[in-house]
Amino acid sequence: MNIIEYGPSAGYESYRKKLAQFYTNQNVRVDYTDIMITTGGSEALLFALGSIMDPGDEVIIPEPFYANYHAFSEESSATVVPVNSSFESGFTLPSIEAFEKLITPKTKAILICNPSNPTGNLYSETEIQQLGELVKKHDLFLIADEVYREFIYDEKDIHYSVMNLIGLEQNVIMIDSVSKRYSMCGARIGCMVTKNKQVIAAAMKFAQARLCPPTIEQIACEAAINTPQSYFDEVIVEYKERRNTLISELNKIEGVKVTLPKAAFYCIAELPVDNTETFAQWLLESYNLNGETVMVAPAAGFYSTPGMGLKQVRIAYVLNKEDLTKAVSILKDAIATYNAR
Amino acid sequence: MNIIEYGPSAGYESYRKKLAQFYTNQNVRVDYTDIMITTGGSEALLFALGSIMDPGDEVIIPEPFYANYHAFSEESSATVVPVNSSFESGFTLPSIEAFEKLITPKTKAILICNPSNPTGNLYSETEIQQLGELVKKHDLFLIADEVYREFIYDEKDIHYSVMNLIGLEQNVIMIDSVSKRYSMCGARIGCMVTKNKQVIAAAMKFAQARLCPPTIEQIACEAAINTPQSYFDEVIVEYKERRNTLISELNKIEGVKVTLPKAAFYCIAELPVDNTETFAQWLLESYNLNGETVMVAPAAGFYSTPGMGLKQVRIAYVLNKEDLTKAVSILKDAIATYNAR
Repeated sequence: MNIIEYGPSAGYESYRKKLAQFYTNQNVRVDYTDIMITTGGSEALLFALGSIMDPGDEVIIPEPFYANYHAFSEESSATVVPVNSSFESGFTLPSIEAFEKLITPKTKAILICNPSNPTGNLYSETEIQQLGELVKKHDLFLIADEVYREFIYDEKDIHYSVMNLIGLEQNVIMIDSVSKRYSMCGARIGCMVTKNKQVIAAAMKFAQARLCPPTIEQIACEAAINTPQSYFDEVIVEYKERRNTLISELNKIEGVKVTLPKAAFYCIAELPVDNTETFAQWLLESYNLNGETVMVAPAAGFYSTPGMGLKQVRIAYVLNKEDLTKAVSILKDAIATYNAR
Repeated sequence: MNIIEYGPSAGYESYRKKLAQFYTNQNVRVDYTDIMITTGGSEALLFALGSIMDPGDEVIIPEPFYANYHAFSEESSATVVPVNSSFESGFTLPSIEAFEKLITPKTKAILICNPSNPTGNLYSETEIQQLGELVKKHDLFLIADEVYREFIYDEKDIHYSVMNLIGLEQNVIMIDSVSKRYSMCGARIGCMVTKNKQVIAAAMKFAQARLCPPTIEQIACEAAINTPQSYFDEVIVEYKERRNTLISELNKIEGVKVTLPKAAFYCIAELPVDNTETFAQWLLESYNLNGETVMVAPAAGFYSTPGMGLKQVRIAYVLNKEDLTKAVSILKDAIATYNAR
């Protein structure tokens, strides 16, 4: 009779070793002992924050950011301190001065998402180096959620992992996931990567408490490492076309402002409406065009500072081009209808 | 191309409905809306404690108990208050007076494991009713980890679920798992069951933060509900024989004291050695009989109160009868060798 026994708390060694090789092939030189397999990138973030944040500690996060960072911080009784990145700049890294204004004796870490959900921004090597200098100066941790690392559209853009910051091996924690890489969101497999052995040791306590990550999906993910590059090339070609379609169509709507995002599969667009939360609700409750409507994510939900993003929405280009084009045409009509009511 | 998308945060509705029917068939009348699927019983406990415990709140737990309850409590900044259940009594429920002595304004819940890891004890219906009266009187939550519910060996013994306590629907939270039921420990599928909708709503925040439980295993577990009763009958017959073999063999060793456990697959035995932590380490580092040794779990690790369990070990009868018999014969020789050194 077959059974499914508990696996090791840090994940199967064979998977960790293959992952270490996978990262090394991308010039992120890690050893399998730097890698803990987790139940999704979500759990990797929970472990990272749980391992470094004491109750009342502060984590600085450029906003707008993935809303669940709030929840993960709350679960460690840590306080999120947002630092504003501007729509006008395309959500590039806030200035170092802006960060330093927010550093207090309670500041423990900076958390970035690179490439970014919800903005689609890609930090440059210079920006990552600047962050590195900042965390070194103030002896902070730098946590980088890099789950969208493959989704980069311009050949001259490269993803610069925080794991490549020289001399910062003790400060840096990288979060990764299979969810977006292989369209395996429901698998719940990710990892926390760091050369800081004290962080690994602390995270292992959380890992041992919950025993181990899911088994079947780990096996699948180990096999998935053999996915040929051609798969990713095709995905990127498709997503680039979707991105171009979405942005081009959005730019045709009068009053809509949006920058071409470099990465991930999101954009933040400013709409010519009074309040996108009200608009989003109205779209679902009160509007239809030939029986169809669209759903958008009000961007206010991605900001920590009250009052930010009230005219912005996040749009994910995870539909095929035809559906995207249609969706934007419905959005155009909806904006006009909404404003005329 | 197939993808694995995120599932619902509370688990697949079809699985929750089948589970509700599974429990109802065992006279635990719940609706699928009372059930949240979790990443193992571990996560169900994390969600339950996270949903009800404020930092500094206290949870009373009969000791000895599953050591990870400490970790889950710590993760919510809650304090474990142990209440001693005695080896001599066979680890029956401590008296109500013993509980009441420990109740403070900070007490939020009582947590039991029934059937018990590490003792193999099964609480009687009377004991469960007493606990129900206690939590009602003091307006506490009662969390019951019932993952070993099938492993009961005497036909006249029945498992009385806390979910059957009448009038306590708002106080009671039940934790379950597929791990022991189907030998699927590595699957990481469990559930939190309660009729308290506020608890469900709070737990949903944790659930939504981590998005969803593992997908493939949920599908497998939904199918596993169709497992015929004959499977469980055979497992219980086997485990009862293993239990009887273990206890009978242990009772042949002079100075060893052990009660016949009614449930689960563990027993706590008292050994005629000075300290079972030292003994357990010596077994692994310094002893062998024809190249073989045994590994036991020092029971002190299952007690919260320092100094308890120093002469006790937990033994799990998860080996076949021949290996159990051999293991106990090695243990007998080891005890003699250890004491003679």
